[in-house]
Amino acid sequence: MTAAFVLFDGLTALDFVGAYDPITRLRSMGFREDFSWDLCAVRTPVHDGRGLPFTPDRVGAPLGDYDLLVVPGGHGTDTLQNDEAFLEWLRTAAPVGLKASVCTGSVLLGAAGFLTGRAATTHPNATDELAPHCARVADARVVDAGNVITARGVSAGIDLGLHLVRRLAGPSVQSQIAEQMDYPHAPSGSA
Amino acid sequence: MTAAFVLFDGLTALDFVGAYDPITRLRSMGFREDFSWDLCAVRTPVHDGRGLPFTPDRVGAPLGDYDLLVVPGGHGTDTLQNDEAFLEWLRTAAPVGLKASVCTGSVLLGAAGFLTGRAATTHPNATDELAPHCARVADARVVDAGNVITARGVSAGIDLGLHLVRRLAGPSVQSQIAEQMDYPHAPSGSA
Repeated sequence: MTAAFVLFDGLTALDFVGAYDPITRLRSMGFREDFSWDLCAVRTPVHDGRGLPFTPDRVGAPLGDYDLLVVPGGHGTDTLQNDEAFLEWLRTAAPVGLKASVCTGSVLLGAAGFLTGRAATTHPNATDELAPHCARVADARVVDAGNVITARGVSAGIDLGLHLVRRLAGPSVQSQIAEQMDYPHAPSGSA
Repeated sequence: MTAAFVLFDGLTALDFVGAYDPITRLRSMGFREDFSWDLCAVRTPVHDGRGLPFTPDRVGAPLGDYDLLVVPGGHGTDTLQNDEAFLEWLRTAAPVGLKASVCTGSVLLGAAGFLTGRAATTHPNATDELAPHCARVADARVVDAGNVITARGVSAGIDLGLHLVRRLAGPSVQSQIAEQMDYPHAPSGSA
């Protein structure tokens, strides 16, 4: 199993790392030895919205061969949702079986066309941005619409990651990872 | 106001970023325009425990001039708690008015001598490592022992960050930052 963590200039670091932590524990805690991941960007440099630098593993490479795509949000999405070069790159992820977002990352999934006809969520401040791209903006921490899963604002990245862990490896593994993360608020199901 | 975020090889990224997000919102959301921070390490390279690279702003520089020190945990602390070069560097933070840790970062604060006579906490799996360094291992998400504040495991970094925000800027700012982070579990007081 392979995952692409999408990075871009102006992302919110906690959107990314909150999801990355539980998901990558699938390998680090020994549940999925075959799991690997890349940090993927269409261009460099990449800093979070407050200047923290990140170093992508792959730059400009197509995304279609991954099994899981995770897109964070952040103020960078203000311009990226209208950046055709970025959206064309993101659309290379069309074949990816499981696509996920945190915060305004769902606006990017939507602008790429991946939310058409689906329920989705985003940061509470961004519902108007998301609405034109999806069937319904749902008010839940995590919205599982089958092969596209979206989460609300920033800290909901942890809930997204734990939900993905549950989908990929079951509730017992989710519980063990949440316990190791010392996270008492793990989602028990999906909206 | 200035903060040093301590980085080291083998840190847990979410320990750091979970605290970094709310704390740096003091500036990004306009509450403390004078606030600045550095990522500080005693040596490079720095990767999290699963290979994610970080780039420190300052390497080997003394820590005494900062107002706030934040130390994450992670498996790297297994060796650092006995690494005299690291501990000598960490002890340069003695004059820092407010010292904080997430997860096994408290074992490093303890090994540096900063927890003597104080209550503290850590990841539930590390209480035996922490106990010799402090007066009492407390079972709380965040333990505020005056000028040293410690938090439990990984995800408690968010609670630590929000507790520090409350100490530095008051409960109204804490509420506004927690809302922007979409975090409904903010700590309301201290243990």
